[in-house]
Amino acid sequence: MRNPAEQREQFAAMLTRPIPADVHSSATTLGGRPALELRIEAPGTTGEDVLLYFHGGGFVVGSARVTAHLTLALLRHLDGRAVSLDYRLAPEHPFPAAPDDCLAAYRELLDSGADPRRLVIAGDSAGAALAVITMMRARDAGLPMPAGAVLFSPAVDLTLSGPSMRSKNGVDPIFTPADLEWYFDQYIAGGDRSGPEASPVFADLAGLPPLLIQVGSSEVLLDDAVRLAGHAGAAEVAVTLEVVPGKPHVFQHDGSAEAEAALERAGQFLALRLRGDL
Amino acid sequence: MRNPAEQREQFAAMLTRPIPADVHSSATTLGGRPALELRIEAPGTTGEDVLLYFHGGGFVVGSARVTAHLTLALLRHLDGRAVSLDYRLAPEHPFPAAPDDCLAAYRELLDSGADPRRLVIAGDSAGAALAVITMMRARDAGLPMPAGAVLFSPAVDLTLSGPSMRSKNGVDPIFTPADLEWYFDQYIAGGDRSGPEASPVFADLAGLPPLLIQVGSSEVLLDDAVRLAGHAGAAEVAVTLEVVPGKPHVFQHDGSAEAEAALERAGQFLALRLRGDL
Repeated sequence: MRNPAEQREQFAAMLTRPIPADVHSSATTLGGRPALELRIEAPGTTGEDVLLYFHGGGFVVGSARVTAHLTLALLRHLDGRAVSLDYRLAPEHPFPAAPDDCLAAYRELLDSGADPRRLVIAGDSAGAALAVITMMRARDAGLPMPAGAVLFSPAVDLTLSGPSMRSKNGVDPIFTPADLEWYFDQYIAGGDRSGPEASPVFADLAGLPPLLIQVGSSEVLLDDAVRLAGHAGAAEVAVTLEVVPGKPHVFQHDGSAEAEAALERAGQFLALRLRGDL
Repeated sequence: MRNPAEQREQFAAMLTRPIPADVHSSATTLGGRPALELRIEAPGTTGEDVLLYFHGGGFVVGSARVTAHLTLALLRHLDGRAVSLDYRLAPEHPFPAAPDDCLAAYRELLDSGADPRRLVIAGDSAGAALAVITMMRARDAGLPMPAGAVLFSPAVDLTLSGPSMRSKNGVDPIFTPADLEWYFDQYIAGGDRSGPEASPVFADLAGLPPLLIQVGSSEVLLDDAVRLAGHAGAAEVAVTLEVVPGKPHVFQHDGSAEAEAALERAGQFLALRLRGDL
């Protein structure tokens, strides 16, 4: 039996990188939850751009700190700050605690004066799903949309119905469908896995801002990304999907040339969205 | 009953634009078929890049000349020339006449000394399908792959099985499924519509070079593009899919800001592929 506390320690030990010397990081709160605020200490980075980041980890593990290097890679293309949220984790806090925290964070950013035209969202894996769900909920609440969103390997189907769950099982070096089942069991408890806020691949995505979705070809979650792109596109959302060959889940972590290039493209996408000339 | 000759005249009248003054266009032959060679008369455009273009028109209408403005928009990002092929059209020349002509053209380019690392392919609609089929056939024949390919609104499923055939029927301002049925009937005659060289969305796409696929959200062919992207990505092909909201089939023709931006991104994609730093 897996132990969430042990899983969290292993995940953090595997992925956490030092915060570079040119970065100012500070603890803050947002929407009632702890958050990590990041600023790059360089001329011309004092602007009002805000990147709201939701980390991955299957809704069970991970933290703003563990994924700070992904947040920073995007922030380097912006003129402003990033805030990465430590939303509540399962199984201690099952669905919909995490989406509730994410929406509260988005709402507080707006309430505190953030200009939605200067606001972008990004996330990886479960955090990418939370990004989509947050935008859907914000739309339904009549809140303005951010200028765009970047989604790394979104985990947007808790029913595991994508064809790649079978075709990439054994190819994916990180997950089997059974692994994902364990994470999603912790999160959804006895709830409806196919509901739109659990599995946004089945949701109404109309009205969302432009999306950049990146995914590796060696993922059981490949078809989550492909179907999300198709579904969003059909709902008249501007979507770019990038499938990077031979790469696993959230390969942006791995320090490879492909990872750096993907992060560069993602940062450029956000910068273009914020400059409004896309 | 539609008449192919009339359809060709209408299609040409609707889409053909003047060749700009800075462009040198000349008639040539390639693989035994007429072709249009285009060069931009400017310093620094005397290089060895080659763009092989396959025009659209449902395998029945269209010509290299009609679509020359799309070819040129891409060529402006290259250092060299474009050759757009007048492959044989249906119903006079049904499947596989067009794929045969396209492969012969590709082979002649290589035989005449074109460096595959300096060679890219592009096409729209039926021509985008021919681009995919040509690369598959070249791969199977042991020929080298081009450096990359751009596919505008690929028509890669002659069985019309994409969900958008229904969901976008009535939204698509250009085609109904019945319209496409007419074109594909002319082309495939009594052949197998689901074979890999008729409907490459069902084919083995492994080994193809990086692809950029652009499609409008208001197309019954939307899911041809989405499924091609997913299928190619699953086969370890580097794929970028762009869904542009509210746009119809091969919207790159329409002169809008979105069309110009899409052509610009497509040209940049090819230039990056040719410079080898993608």
